[in-house]
Amino acid sequence: MLIRDCSQGQSFLARLDSGAEIIGQITDLARERQIESGTFSAIGALTRADLGYYDQAAHVYHVTPVDEPVEIAACLGNISLLEGRPFVHAHAVLANGRGRSWAGHLVRGTIFAAEVYLQELSGLPLKRVPDSITGLKLWGEER
Amino acid sequence: MLIRDCSQGQSFLARLDSGAEIIGQITDLARERQIESGTFSAIGALTRADLGYYDQAAHVYHVTPVDEPVEIAACLGNISLLEGRPFVHAHAVLANGRGRSWAGHLVRGTIFAAEVYLQELSGLPLKRVPDSITGLKLWGEER
Amino acid sequence: MLIRDCSQGQSFLARLDSGAEIIGQITDLARERQIESGTFSAIGALTRADLGYYDQAAHVYHVTPVDEPVEIAACLGNISLLEGRPFVHAHAVLANGRGRSWAGHLVRGTIFAAEVYLQELSGLPLKRVPDSITGLKLWGEER
Repeated sequence: MLIRDCSQGQSFLARLDSGAEIIGQITDLARERQIESGTFSAIGALTRADLGYYDQAAHVYHVTPVDEPVEIAACLGNISLLEGRPFVHAHAVLANGRGRSWAGHLVRGTIFAAEVYLQELSGLPLKRVPDSITGLKLWGEER
Repeated sequence: MLIRDCSQGQSFLARLDSGAEIIGQITDLARERQIESGTFSAIGALTRADLGYYDQAAHVYHVTPVDEPVEIAACLGNISLLEGRPFVHAHAVLANGRGRSWAGHLVRGTIFAAEVYLQELSGLPLKRVPDSITGLKLWGEER
Repeated sequence: MLIRDCSQGQSFLARLDSGAEIIGQITDLARERQIESGTFSAIGALTRADLGYYDQAAHVYHVTPVDEPVEIAACLGNISLLEGRPFVHAHAVLANGRGRSWAGHLVRGTIFAAEVYLQELSGLPLKRVPDSITGLKLWGEER
């Protein structure tokens, strides 16, 4: 287990822009405010999205397009450094109005409306580095 | 993007009342403690609920009744001002024990058990005002 | 409604261990750091899990095995004291890559990768005690 002690830095509530891409907007917010690590949650709605599912055996992402308007029933994510720049990792649960829901890694989504709570967590830099066991870029020490 | 800088205000853990309505109880908590803006999460179970889905083209909410006991698998929300009073906006993922789940805007729900973490985020007032693009009341400036 | 005022204690971002059990790892983290109450969220993936659904009439948990690799689309939980020791209560939404999702009380899960944000919430001890109405161990006063 890799544990990083943090101190509470900047806190924001933000309304994202209709028509913009959600991961890009949160990344922009992090970069503008020089947030290198943090946590966030979001609710709202998207006009469409792509969700990723990681194949734990083959070590590849499969992407499922969600080509319809959906509520963001839940979105949780974090910010850390990938190759020296703030990187957003988010998962989400999406739902349409006919009883169907989708859940997974939020690759991208076009915002209809989105309300975000973002909490900076300052401390030692938290970097994503290649992990041989999972094939993912996980928090760790650079070699 | 509308970004509001916040400072961490009051923090609570709360156990809500069995039989009460969840949005009403969180609203009561916010009003009693004079919390004008904040973020919260909740887990627990409801005896029933109504979930809303916003029709992004027609600009109306459709409500789906969930007329059975469900777990609150995830609930995320925020508090801001609507017409000068604390207003709770929450989304949720609900699930029964037979493999069915529902997700969307939590209009109301009757509490079986609910555990809430609420964090006040102080700062400039954050007000909901009519937004012509979405037809929703979103965070913005009053005209 | 039982409301406990808290102050923000320790904050962590943690990467849990591949192959370990998720509830056990978060419990270990809480015990090592002497965290008696707090809140957390997590995203990542599990190789398998067991989800619980509480029968609100019969007052028993039914457990659904999820015997395949899944994304942790959302996981929210809290830490409080049960019989004098830090106890983790978590709910989760899980999803495979073929459009199926599961949601409920996270009884246990084997970690593929998991990123956790944990916030200690200090204050008066928050204890789980038997609740006669629900049959659950909820936050309350010992008799």
